[in-house]
Order: sequence, then C-alpha cells, then structure tokens
Amino acid sequence: MTATPSPDAIHSFARAAHARFGPKVAVTDADAIAPWLTDWRGRYQGAASLLLQPGTTAEVAELVALAAALRVPLVPQGGNTSMVGGATPPADGSAAILSLRRMNRVRRIDPDAGIAVAEAGVILSDLHDTALAQGRRFPLTLGAKGSATLGGLVSTNAGGTQVLRFGTMRGLVLGLEAVLPDGSVHDGLAPLKKDNRGYDLNQLLIGAEGTLGIVTAATLGLVAALHSRAVAWAGVESPHAALALLRLFEAATDRLESFEIVPAHSLGLVLDHIPDTRAPLSAPHPWHVLIEMGASDAEQEPPAALIERLLATGLERGLVRDATIAASEAQAEAFWKLRDSISEAERASGPALQHDISVPVAAMPDFMIEGARAVEAAFPGTSAGAFGHLGDGNVHFHVRAPAGADRDWAKTQSAIISPFVHDLVVAAGGSISAEHGIGQMKRDELARLSSPARLHALAAIKQGLDPDNLFNPGKLVTLAPRRAGQ
Amino acid sequence: MTATPSPDAIHSFARAAHARFGPKVAVTDADAIAPWLTDWRGRYQGAASLLLQPGTTAEVAELVALAAALRVPLVPQGGNTSMVGGATPPADGSAAILSLRRMNRVRRIDPDAGIAVAEAGVILSDLHDTALAQGRRFPLTLGAKGSATLGGLVSTNAGGTQVLRFGTMRGLVLGLEAVLPDGSVHDGLAPLKKDNRGYDLNQLLIGAEGTLGIVTAATLGLVAALHSRAVAWAGVESPHAALALLRLFEAATDRLESFEIVPAHSLGLVLDHIPDTRAPLSAPHPWHVLIEMGASDAEQEPPAALIERLLATGLERGLVRDATIAASEAQAEAFWKLRDSISEAERASGPALQHDISVPVAAMPDFMIEGARAVEAAFPGTSAGAFGHLGDGNVHFHVRAPAGADRDWAKTQSAIISPFVHDLVVAAGGSISAEHGIGQMKRDELARLSSPARLHALAAIKQGLDPDNLFNPGKLVTLAPRRAGQ
Repeated sequence: MTATPSPDAIHSFARAAHARFGPKVAVTDADAIAPWLTDWRGRYQGAASLLLQPGTTAEVAELVALAAALRVPLVPQGGNTSMVGGATPPADGSAAILSLRRMNRVRRIDPDAGIAVAEAGVILSDLHDTALAQGRRFPLTLGAKGSATLGGLVSTNAGGTQVLRFGTMRGLVLGLEAVLPDGSVHDGLAPLKKDNRGYDLNQLLIGAEGTLGIVTAATLGLVAALHSRAVAWAGVESPHAALALLRLFEAATDRLESFEIVPAHSLGLVLDHIPDTRAPLSAPHPWHVLIEMGASDAEQEPPAALIERLLATGLERGLVRDATIAASEAQAEAFWKLRDSISEAERASGPALQHDISVPVAAMPDFMIEGARAVEAAFPGTSAGAFGHLGDGNVHFHVRAPAGADRDWAKTQSAIISPFVHDLVVAAGGSISAEHGIGQMKRDELARLSSPARLHALAAIKQGLDPDNLFNPGKLVTLAPRRAGQ
Repeated sequence: MTATPSPDAIHSFARAAHARFGPKVAVTDADAIAPWLTDWRGRYQGAASLLLQPGTTAEVAELVALAAALRVPLVPQGGNTSMVGGATPPADGSAAILSLRRMNRVRRIDPDAGIAVAEAGVILSDLHDTALAQGRRFPLTLGAKGSATLGGLVSTNAGGTQVLRFGTMRGLVLGLEAVLPDGSVHDGLAPLKKDNRGYDLNQLLIGAEGTLGIVTAATLGLVAALHSRAVAWAGVESPHAALALLRLFEAATDRLESFEIVPAHSLGLVLDHIPDTRAPLSAPHPWHVLIEMGASDAEQEPPAALIERLLATGLERGLVRDATIAASEAQAEAFWKLRDSISEAERASGPALQHDISVPVAAMPDFMIEGARAVEAAFPGTSAGAFGHLGDGNVHFHVRAPAGADRDWAKTQSAIISPFVHDLVVAAGGSISAEHGIGQMKRDELARLSSPARLHALAAIKQGLDPDNLFNPGKLVTLAPRRAGQ
C-alpha cells in the first residue's frame, strides 16, 4: 500500500533540500547522522542518508511538500528517547530523518493566563526552568526530561510519575501547530477553552507518533509553582490496601500529585544494588506506597499536615501498617530515588522483561496479584512483579528470568512471555501501551489484540490523512492492502 | 461523492428492519416520526419515512450494518436539542433517523472510583439525579438538561455555564462505546487513565456530531457532590476589569465553577422583560460578573468566605465597583435567573442575531469592546453586545436590530451580518462555534473560514471512516469531490 519511492528518490530529495536550504538544514554527512539511527535502548538499527534540521515551521512545511512530491518518507525525531523504536528510521534507508531539535524557542509565556507557546524542539527540562522563572510550573515530568523534546512528548502523549493532578500531555496541550503530510500547516495554537469546529485535530495528533502530522509547536498549560510539597512512604499489606488508601486520599483532596506502589521485592533489589539507599521504615512490609502532595501558596493546609492527617486515618482503618513523612527535601528526594531506581536495580540483578501496561485503577490490585501468579505458573522459574503508578492504573509489569538464565533470556523469551502478559492485560480491559506508545516494538501486538473496529479505524484515518504512507512509516499502524479500484 | 441510494433503498431497509426487529424498533408511522423531523428552534425541516429505535448496542450495530449494505444514510438523534440543526434529517427523505432514546440505562455507577457508565439515551438531568443519589456529582449542566441525552452531549462536546473547574464533555468522558459506519463496535469504555494505543478514537468521536460513529454509551467522570456553593454578583467597570478579577480568582483557587459576564444593557432588558427580577446591586454599573464557587466536604474554607476575601482584594485593587454575595440558596438562584434570562429578555425586546463564539480568554475583553464597535459601525442602527462565559472565552455575541426593524430582520440580515462577525472572530484567533457545534447551520461558514489544512483533514478523516457518507450526511464536514480513480 506504500508508494515505493524510486531508488534514487532520496538522493533527488537530498539534492533539492540542499540546494534550497543549505548544509545546515540538509545534512548528508554520515558521521553527523549516525547518532540518530539507533534508538535510545539500542534495540533498533535504522539507516538514513539524509538528516533534515529545519529551523522554522515554514521550512518544515516546504520540506514536507518536497518530500511528498518525490514520495520520500520522513521520520520525525526529537530527543530520540522513544522506548518503542518510534523515532528510528527504517533499515532500508528509504526515509529521511526530520529532526525538530533546532526549533527550540519558547515563543511566548503568559504567566497570568497560564500558557506557554513552545516549539517542538524545546527540551522538557528547559521548559520547566523557563516556566519556573515566571513563577509557574509545567507539571509533567519524566526520567528523560533532559533529552526528551516537546514535539515527541506531544506525539507520544507522554505521562510519567506525576499525572494524577494535571494529567498526561493530552490534558496539558491547549493548542498545536503541525505540518500535515501534504505540506499544509495546521495552526491550532490558539488556546480556546471551548471550540467545537468539528473533529479535534489537536487531540488526534496527540499520541499519533508522527504518523499523521509533524508537530512543530504547542501551546501548553502552566500551573501555579509549587510553594511546598510533602512526600510520604507507607508500608501496606497489599495492593488492595494501597488502592483503599488511594481512594481515601482522593476523596479528601485533589492535590495528590503521585501515588506509586513498590513491592518488597523491588525495594529489596534497590537496597541491594543501588548505593546510598536505605529503607524509609524500620520493619519490612509486603508492599509500599510513595505519596506526593503539593500546595501552591494560596492553599490553606500545608501538604505535610494533610498527608499526616490522612495517613492517620489510614492507620486507624487498618489500611496502613506504618508510614513516615519526609522531614526534608533531601529525604523526599531519597524516597523518590528508591522508586526511580527500581529498573536499574532489576537490570543489575538479572534479565527481565518489562511491560508498560495499564488497566482501570479499580482492577489494578487483582491484576497485580493474579497476573503475576498466572505468569509464574505458565513460565516456571520466572518471578513476576509490578510497580509504578497505581494512581493512574499504569504499572510496569516485569517478568524476571529464572535463576541462572543467560543474558539473552529476555531476547529469546519476549516473543513467548510478552504476548502472554498482553493477553492478561486485554482480558482485564487494559491497554498494552500505557505511556510508551506503540512505535515499532508493539505494532504487531497492537494488530493482534485490537478489535476489528479499532484496527480498521486506525488504518482508515492513516490512509485518509497520509495516503502515501510518508510520515513515520512502519510505526504504530498496520495498513491493510488497498481495495481494488483505489 | 455520496453513494446515491436507489429510490427505494429506504423502503427495502424499512422492510428488512421491521422484519428483523418489529415495529417497536422500526417505526414507519408518520405521526410518530413527525416530532423528530424539525429541529428544536424550528429552523430546519427534514423528512424521513423511517425512525429506528434500537434498545441495545448490538441492535444499533446490526441496523448500521444493514443500512451500510443498502447504502441508506442514518441520522443519529438523542433529545433533538441541537442549536445548529445537527440532528435533523435531510429534506429529501433519503435517510432514516436512528434514535438512541430507548438506550437509557445507567449501566454502572462506581462512586469510589468516580465513574458512571451510561447509555447514549440517558437524559442529562437523570444522570445528575442518579449520581447525586450516590453522593456524587456529574458536573456538566446546561439549559436543555431535561431533554438533552448523553450521546448528543458527547457528540457535540457540550459545554454550558459550569465548565471552569471540570471542563466540557471532552474532559469528562473517560471511555466510549460507539458503532462505526461499517457496523463494527468500538468498545473503548474502559476508564484507562493512561492508554497510548495509537489515535485516540474516543477523542475523535467527541464533537464529531455523529458523522464518524454513533455513540451508544459513555464512561463518565463523577466528582464529589457539592457540600456548599456560593454565588456572588459584582459590578465592574469593563470586561478588562472583569478579566483581571478572573485572574485574581484563578490564582487563588481552583474551585471556581462559573465566571459569567453581563453588560448593563442585558441586565436592563432582563429587569424590563422578565417578571420577578431585581438588580442585585443598588447602583448601576457598566458591566457585571456572576461568580460561583463550590466546596466539597473536605475543603477548608467555605466558598462564601473565600469569595468574600477575594472580592475584597478586588475592591482594594480597583477591579470591583461593588459586590454582593447571595445570602441564601434562593438568592443564588435569583442571581442565576438574571444571567439565564438574557436570551429570553432579548427576544422579547426585538429581533437579534446570536453568535456562539470563542476567543482566547486573554483576548476576550478587547474582542467584546472592539467587535461590538466594528459591527455597529458597519451596520448602522444595530447595537451589538456580548455576554456569557468569560471564564472560558465563550461569549454569546448578539447583534440587535435597529429600532423599528420587522420580525424578519434576523432572517434577512444573517447572511450579511453573521459572516462579518465570524471574520472578526477568526481575526482574533477564535472559533466560530464555541459550544453549539457546526451541524447544518455553520457548515458553509466553517468551509469558508477554515484553513486548507483543517478542511482537508476533516474531509480526509470523514472519507476514511465513512467512505459512503452514510452517517449524518450534510452535517459538519464539506466533502470534496473524489479524485479520479477512487
């Protein structure tokens, strides 16, 4: 279904782009391109003889129109931090990489209106800093914040550990500018709180992984800067107790920023493998939760007092075994380090398969217990466990290799074990991709597990907007062969 | 581009539907159909010889598949309260009406999770009552709440006067079930807080006015029931002062439910024409704002105290001329009656053209002043004014007839004056449809004023998902002729 470019289409394109924009925009030096051909985790190796680095939306539009005329596929790329190979070009060298990194201006900040208009290449931590300098906060954050760019964060509907209060990117995008596959520019930057002019193109582009449009800028919501925060660590009996505690907090306040769950096993690995870590509570507990709550200036009760009050209620109701509130910012950071080091500690302890999945929050405790049990029964010797964002129903479900497994275990077993895990997720009404997207890695699983309605709709939308399959081909959507006559 | 059904396709369809589902589902009695052929405001007259009333999603799917096979267009209908002719069938009688009203079950309420799963035919006020019985609130409300159904509210991304805190339907829909034009069922009801499995079909269906899918059920977010509310009325100098006051409130609290603006002229009309109304403040003011704030149990400061404190700051800063807080629920209702009666009072005072438009909140004060001035200069004798939801940038911009104009003034002038108003809106970066949608009424204006990118994208999405243009034809989207070979 893809229009096959003629073998030298990419070379014609490179020549034309070079002639029009010069070597700063049209890069053909293999050494300069090499770092952008492999994904962040080193799982996918692509090839490309052309790297485009436009500096403006108009340049992006012109390059896209040129590529469309020559039928050259484009792979948009920001910080290249995809966890699913979403920004790696195809291995056959047919596509050009279109990097947005040079488009890194924050065009405008309006702190009173709570709005920033920023280009796709702005790095997340730079936006954090820019907002903070104006007394505002861009509330989304994640591990790759020093590399990940806004265009990629929008295109993957990024989440992270702090989405409870203000949501994922989908909830923070107030406007978008994007270049569509025909080279036309969609200017949807105006932050309209009510706008019912038909299909919401901005929402469609969020999470589309660059397959429908290349995001060039976004209008993003800013919130009041945090005046203070409090971080607590609690030991609980089970994920069910953790959920009941979450409900207790949710009923009492909408200031909850994070609610993370950590099993004893994961905490143990961190304490064993990560230097300078210690358990926050003196006794062992089967499960732990990390709770963060914030306050802006105007709010009355300090977050530490509110957490303490609610934890006390949790203790009374038997939901909490023991708990402590970080007494300092350093201790708060130490609690977070325990949570954030789990993946690293697991890697140090042996091979594991990781799954970024979600189920409805109410279904999560059962899924964590029964899902792990099912995996361990089906694959004797493995141990399975989940940790992560209980508050938003998104856990990282890890299956660890049997003792003595070799380093290739994950590679050889993923084709067997991951589909088994995904089947469990689907049976629980969940999603096989909570926050990392589909990219290359999960494309076939998405095709295997989606309803005919969803699969047909994804392909129909893609074919409607990008009939020649030129935007990020091979990612996310599986295209059906065209019907005869089309 | 539309597949023209054979003249008797609708009759074949009626016979088949009747044979399969009986007369309760396939209604052909003209008297029973008649009430659903005209829009709520009586502006559009349609024709249909068949009204379908399925009772389940499976029945909807089967009817859609049958209609697709016979190429019979379907017009989905809920409470038939569209303000833009969005649910009125075409006048040529080629389409069947598919009413969702019999699908009126609330399938499930989970007060702890803050979730209701309700069918498309559930009437908004019934959902309010059902939620309240469980100590929860569905926070969206609007004038037609006694008739409007959830399917229509989803399909038009309904707003209303109370969207500041929890947003429009788009922000309240946690999951959707819909039948697509090929008869397949999209089951996206699971309330996943993080789900990145490609294009967000739920978000695409919200606001699509039934042109891409027929919404059969929705998972909706519920919030804590209001423990108390406070409503204040303030006199201000200008829309600019009103905006500054809004910012003061927004900076201090996220509990603001409504922030409405009313010009002196509109208040005067209400006091003149609506019985049992009186001005809340003793002296006249050029502009007024109505502010509502709520509190759930757990919050500390009572809303009346918080409003009073913030209004005092507003007085100090010269943003407020005078203000009063409703001393009772009856007085709060009386304040709201002033706001809610403006349209009725205007109708009593003479012909007017109404426009449901939005601009970025920060741009609204200038737009209100300068837009009115521009209209009055261009159309001597008219007077223009705006009132409504300042907090979400959505005002109702009314152009009143010159003195002595006849009752047909609006009909004859709308083709000249409304495009002029819409041009001003577009120049201000706004939307020609803030909350009412496009339907039939604004379809040509949407086509005239949208960017090529937007127009192309809307048509491409529609043609991808509904290639035979069978779902609500003639509404929202203007289809381009197909390219040769397709």
